[in-house]
This record gives sequence, C-alpha cells and structure tokens, in this order.
Amino acid sequence: MCPHQNGDSAAADKSEMVAVPLQNGHSNGVNGSSNGTQPIKKRGTTRAPDAHLKKEPRNPYAARASDLISNISNFNIIESTLREGEQFANAFFDTKTKVAIAKALDAFGVEYIELTSPAASEQSRLDCETICKLGLRAKILTHIRCHMDDARIAVETGVDGVDVVIGTSSFLREFSHGKDMTYITKTAIEVIEFVKSKGIEVRFSSEDSFRSDLVDLLSIYQTVDKIGVNRVGIADTVGCANPRQVYDLVRTLRSVVSCDIEIHLHNDTGMAIANAYTALEAGATHIDTSVLGIGERVGITPLGGLVACLYAANPEYVKSKYNLAMLREIENLVAEAVEVNIPFMNPITGYCAFTHKAGIHAKAILNNPSTYEILKPEDFGLTRYVSIGHRLTGWNAVKSRVEQLGLALTDDEDVTAKIKELADVRTQSMDDVDTLLRVYHSGIQSGELAVGQKEALDRLLRRHKAEAQGRAASPSLERDD
Amino acid sequence: MCPHQNGDSAAADKSEMVAVPLQNGHSNGVNGSSNGTQPIKKRGTTRAPDAHLKKEPRNPYAARASDLISNISNFNIIESTLREGEQFANAFFDTKTKVAIAKALDAFGVEYIELTSPAASEQSRLDCETICKLGLRAKILTHIRCHMDDARIAVETGVDGVDVVIGTSSFLREFSHGKDMTYITKTAIEVIEFVKSKGIEVRFSSEDSFRSDLVDLLSIYQTVDKIGVNRVGIADTVGCANPRQVYDLVRTLRSVVSCDIEIHLHNDTGMAIANAYTALEAGATHIDTSVLGIGERVGITPLGGLVACLYAANPEYVKSKYNLAMLREIENLVAEAVEVNIPFMNPITGYCAFTHKAGIHAKAILNNPSTYEILKPEDFGLTRYVSIGHRLTGWNAVKSRVEQLGLALTDDEDVTAKIKELADVRTQSMDDVDTLLRVYHSGIQSGELAVGQKEALDRLLRRHKAEAQGRAASPSLERDD
Repeated sequence: MCPHQNGDSAAADKSEMVAVPLQNGHSNGVNGSSNGTQPIKKRGTTRAPDAHLKKEPRNPYAARASDLISNISNFNIIESTLREGEQFANAFFDTKTKVAIAKALDAFGVEYIELTSPAASEQSRLDCETICKLGLRAKILTHIRCHMDDARIAVETGVDGVDVVIGTSSFLREFSHGKDMTYITKTAIEVIEFVKSKGIEVRFSSEDSFRSDLVDLLSIYQTVDKIGVNRVGIADTVGCANPRQVYDLVRTLRSVVSCDIEIHLHNDTGMAIANAYTALEAGATHIDTSVLGIGERVGITPLGGLVACLYAANPEYVKSKYNLAMLREIENLVAEAVEVNIPFMNPITGYCAFTHKAGIHAKAILNNPSTYEILKPEDFGLTRYVSIGHRLTGWNAVKSRVEQLGLALTDDEDVTAKIKELADVRTQSMDDVDTLLRVYHSGIQSGELAVGQKEALDRLLRRHKAEAQGRAASPSLERDD
Repeated sequence: MCPHQNGDSAAADKSEMVAVPLQNGHSNGVNGSSNGTQPIKKRGTTRAPDAHLKKEPRNPYAARASDLISNISNFNIIESTLREGEQFANAFFDTKTKVAIAKALDAFGVEYIELTSPAASEQSRLDCETICKLGLRAKILTHIRCHMDDARIAVETGVDGVDVVIGTSSFLREFSHGKDMTYITKTAIEVIEFVKSKGIEVRFSSEDSFRSDLVDLLSIYQTVDKIGVNRVGIADTVGCANPRQVYDLVRTLRSVVSCDIEIHLHNDTGMAIANAYTALEAGATHIDTSVLGIGERVGITPLGGLVACLYAANPEYVKSKYNLAMLREIENLVAEAVEVNIPFMNPITGYCAFTHKAGIHAKAILNNPSTYEILKPEDFGLTRYVSIGHRLTGWNAVKSRVEQLGLALTDDEDVTAKIKELADVRTQSMDDVDTLLRVYHSGIQSGELAVGQKEALDRLLRRHKAEAQGRAASPSLERDD
C-alpha cells in the first residue's frame, strides 16, 4: 500500500491503489500572479465592489494581512547535517559521503552548509578544507566553541563564516564549562573580533538559551551586535521550548539587535518544526536544519519538515528557492549513510503522505485534491494515491477505478457493499477489487444480475472463482490464505 | 549504537555505549510538592526575602505565572488509533488486535478511546459492541458522519458517547457533501438531540475548520452549545494550521461556548504536536491522538509526542495520569500491527532519544543529566547512554568509562586524542576503546609509557595487537576490515 519505498517491512503493494492523475489545473489559490501587461495604475485604493462575490475558495493558510516582522517568506536555511547531524549516534561520515551530502544540499539550494569544528579531529579539519574547495554556491560555515584556539584553526580552512557557540544557562555554567557571564562576554568579543579581522562572517550563539537568564542573554547579544557580529543565535539545546516561548524570545531579541537572528531547535518533544516556523513569524532570519532532523538525541528541525510548513504558507516562494524534487533523493542519501529508515510519518516523503483512504476523503480528493491536500505531490516529484480495497471505502473511490477499467456501472452501492464485506475479513488487493468489478459488470451487462440481487452476485463470484481455479490462472477473489 | 531496538537496520551495538546510572536524586526542580503537615495558613502574601537567593537553577519550562485559560495541566486524551488510525493506509485491525490495543490504551490511562463508525461495515459495528463490553475505565466513543442513519446505529452499540463530524469549509461544502450551512445546522441539531435523548455524551465537530468561514463556525458552535452538546470539536483535517492560528481560533471559540473544546490535528507539515500544545494553552480541553500518529496520510498528533511535551511542562501531573513506562510497549504493539518501524527520531522511544555523543554534551550529562535532558528516561522505563568511540568524544566521557573499568588514569588527553585519531578512520566499538584504555593504563603503570609519548603508545598498541592475533582471541584494536 505504499507509494514510496522506504525500507519498511510493510507490504508495499501498489496494486491496492488507484493512481490519481496529477491535475496541473487545480489551484489552491495561493499567490496567483499575472504576467499580462498592466494598465497605468492610479493612486488611491477602493474595495472592488464584487470582491466578496469572488467564487474561488479563499485560502486560509495564505497570509491575510502583511506582518512586517514576519520572515515566513524571507529566510535562509543553515543546513547542519554535516555538523549537528554528525552528532547523531549512528553518524560516521567519511570524506566521500560528506562531499556527496554537501553537493546534494547545494544542488537543492540551501543558503548555508555548516560543518563540524576543524578542532574536533585532524580528519574533520581536512574535510572542512576539501568542502570549502568544492566551489559550491552555498556558503560554508564551521561551528566552534567560543575559544581562540578553535577560532585560529577555523579561519585557516577557507570557510565563508564561523559559528561560535557557548553555553549561557545556569545549568551549563555550573555543570559544563563553569565560566561566568563576564568571562563569556570577554572571550566572545575577542573571538568575534578575530574572525571579523579575517573578513569572513561570524555568528555568536548562546547554548541552552531558553534556560538562560533573559537579562544575561539580551546583554551579551546587544554587546556582540554593537561590535558588528553578522548574526546572533538562539539555541534550544535541550528541546524544552514551545512555540509561544519561541515567539516571545525572538520578538524581544528582534527589538534589541539589528543583526540577523538564527535559531537552532532540538526536537525532544516533537515541536522543532513548529518552533522554527514561529521563530520566523517573530523575525528570525536563519533556521538551522539537518536532513531527517538527525543530531544529538532525536535531533533538530528536519529540512523536509521545515520545507513542508513553509511551502504550505507560500508555495511560490519556496519553489523559487529550492529544487523540491530533490528532497526525497537527499533524504535517501542521508538515511542510507546513517542506516535509518525514512520515518513512515515523515512530512512529504513519508510512507503514505499522499495516500487517501477513508471513503469521504477519497470522494473529495477525486473531485478536487485541494480538499484534503495542502502540499501538491507533483511539486515534490511525487504522486497521490487513493486506496480502495478496505472497509472504509466508498462508491466515489470505487467509481474512479470503474472508469479507469473502462467499465460502465451506474451509481449503485451493491458493489461497494460487497468490497466492504470482503474487506471486513481481509484487505482486498487491487486485483481482488478489479475481479469483483468485472464480474459485477458482466453480470449486469448479460442480464444475469440486477441491482439489489446480492445472492445473484455471490453466485456469479463463486462461479468465477471455480472457473479461475479450473484454469489455475488469474487471481482468485476468495482465497483461503 | 542503539539503546532501543526498533527494527532499523543500523548496527544496534550497545558495546559502543557507556550506560549511565540513573540518578534518582537529580531533580529538574519542577513542581516540588511537600506532603508534610502544614501550619495554619494566614491570608495575605508577601515575597520571601531570600527567594532570589535560592540556589537551585530555575526551571524555565515550568509555568512562571498561572494562566487561567491554559489547560496544559488539565486535559483529556481522546485516543483515536482505532478510528483515525484505521484510516492509515497500512491499517487492518482484526477484532483481536482492536481488543489488545483498546486494553493497552486503557491500562496506559487515556481518558477516551474512539472507534470507527459502526456504519462503516458490519464487522466495525460488531467490534464496537465487543469493545464496549470489555468494561474498560476509558470512555468509549464512536465517530460518525452528521447523519441520522449513522446516529441510530451508533447509539445501539453501547458506547459512552458519539463524536459527530461534518465538513464546513467551502472546499468540502463544494467538493464533498455539497450542503449549505442552514442544512448542516438543522441536521446537527437533530442528531445531537437524538444522541442526547439516549443519555450519552455527544460531540459536534466541524471538519477542515481552519479553512471554514469564522462566522459560520462560531455560529454553529454557539447553536450546538446552547442545546447542550458536551463538546465542540475543531479539526485541522488537511494539516494546514500553525501554532499561532490554533491559539487564536481556540481562544476565540473559548469565549463563545461554555462546553468543552476538542481538537484534532493532522501532521502534514509536522506541527501537530506543537499545535495540540498551543491549543491547550488557549483553553482546549480534549486532544485527539493516535499511537505513533497513524491516520490518513502522515496522520495526526502522536500519543507519545503529546505526552513528551506535556511531561516537559509538568512532569508530576503527567506521571500522575498515565502509566508512562507502558508507552514503548503500546507503540511496539501498534507498529507491529500496521507493519511500520518506530521512527528513529520519535520523541521518548526513538532510536537514540537518550543517547549523548558530542564531548561537550557527554561531560555535562555525566555531571548532571538535566543539563541536556528535559525528559527523565527512568520515568519511561528507559536508560540513558553516552557514546564515546567517535571523533567528537572528549576526556570526560572517556574518564567515565575508565572509572567503570576500575582503572586509575589522571586527567590527561593522550588517550582521548588516540581514540579520536582511530575514530577518524572508523567508529570504534566499546571493545576497541576498552582495549586502548587497558593498554594505555598498563603502560603507564609499568613505566613503559609516560604522558606525551605518542610513539610509545603506538608501539604498545602494535605489540598488543600482535599478541592478540597470536592468541586469535580477544578483539583486536586495528582491524583491517
């Protein structure tokens, strides 16, 4: 039943599915643009008298009013599969794999690629140099502790920027590095000025920001903003933040600094995608992601999930920035490298992200995919399916298959009821369903069967089964297995 | 490297991990309660003079001020694995499986269990009756279209309540059922009064609420509230909502109706957990979940994810309501039934949810697990691990293993550097690391080796390897494979 192979053990039987033609014509009404020539536009605005009569359904997830602080349609992705992702327990990336991932991310279109600190090991340093020499369009960053030793190594690798981090929460100050805010501020200034002196980008991030004292945080961010840091970073290192906290902190910070704001969000409670979305609404400019979200523990905001929610908000903007059809390939590349499966419920590329099952859903999807889809599968190089061989099916989904088979059946419910009855015992494959439809159709055509004659249908099915067994060919309808 | 088996193909090699003893004593400071007898409490409040001197790190994800509208610590779960979950493409639950899932959910402690409409098929009706007769402590609901035919069948099954749903968005009104709001309201009143007349609970939900006209929505909710519906339901059927939209709609609705508010959230953009959390903040009372989130397309708010974020907000409340150690067992039960793997990044039960890798993380975790964990693994019957045999490792993590092995090594970096050097070529197993530690230790003890003598260490390792190969026993440190 699975439109996209991902290594799960489930029977991936496309034969139970109706493939639904992709309709280029269907629009969900977002950001319609006209390329025609425009008449001279006079100043002064007035509501068009028939605006409220507009027939097209209004799209509620498109912005209704402009929000000057929001960056939902004006953001950068800092892709950290090769840094945060390397902290995933299963990750061991050799040079070849790192290069393949970096090239794929660059082809997808991410704005930044972040690499493990060259101070971590000699191979990490060499790989950093190698990736800097690939000539990618994405800017290459490396991520270091707030320490001059690390900074000196980092600036020699050829990176376009350095991401500096230090823990600021009382938890980390007490149990990790043991430094006070005065020491942190002094070191931060030294490192930032050193990196800036090399003419490359520098970001200063706190760690565990949501458990840091707000005054300490704002104070150090204001200090580093004044000396010309390119970005300040907020990090939900432990994954404790919720969307309204994220909105509040980012919005407060937006009023304190003039530089860009980056956010790094762990996914321990499953809120990292929503937290990233909300951070952009509050004025953040850069979001950290990794492919499939891989990272420490359960990881961070996944690239695919972030793309999904931002596409839902503004499909045209997201399509213009990124090569969306590559998403699945990149996820497969990384999944293979770290030996995990694509989660069955992954946004966009999950097992059945575009599969519709319940009768009420199938009917509406066949009329207009926008009824139950906010993501168009064709924009991601994928296909939608309607599943019909189960007890939740309905006539409209079945009728779609009847038409595909070129059969002529009127709107009656007998054949649907029979599918449901059989599926109460075992999910029916598409072969099972097709056989039933053909037997029913030929019975009606030949006059052996009329609407409402359930016993006659059963008799015809038994006869067909006996004949099929006799031939020991074509799939049987009522197998005993 | 995997603490929890989930069927992924990755090498689940516990031998690369250091198991960290669970510390009952560590507290993250949330909601400390005292059971001692209380002195008579006088009216009037004043700030304790030394409150600001309190040493314990403040926990930022505990509520700082009471929010009268928030139900973060006062909610019900409507568990819909046996309804929404049955709409997952892979789901076919026979009676035995349904009963097993219902019993497990009841033992976990969910307040409600929702079942597929008995109008869907004859077996669905029989299963509904069977589960009603189990005598569970959870209330049993069934979910029907807003139609008298379905309602008549539903009330005869023995359920404790009926969840009624109808599409209200212009999309669904046009492309699905084709009814107008007058018809919808009239039918809703008829169905609700009928169900109420049977003395059982009734909920009225719109479908695709976030693409419905707000005035239509509030109008019908107000109408059904006035005739005594128990709950009104909001449904993000297409998964288009974001947290701030959810907050706004629920908060608006809270001011319009006096009944309970349920919310049902699809996960197409990966925001269903955060949307549920935010809905509770805005005054929702009931959240729909399914185990692992299974449902149409990529499904809905997962039970485990919801539990994770609500536990992070108020562990004591969540622990008092639910048998958290059962979560993994329930997820395994459902994963097996629908033939999927537990996603590696699943909150709580994911592959490495409690595995720490980077040196900086490992050091702090060993000092105090609260530094990088907001969920205590022991509350879920799980264990934390620190991974050490990789190039991001550090002395503090290695030292923890040194102590477990009963070796005496001082705080020098030689042995850590050697692990990093070897791990640059291939991730080191725990056996590899242990061998290195023992060789280094015996070299120091015997005087053959001193701090800083890297060549001497290499020589000792080569000798050990040769001896090991000679014995053809014990794991070798420098395998060629």
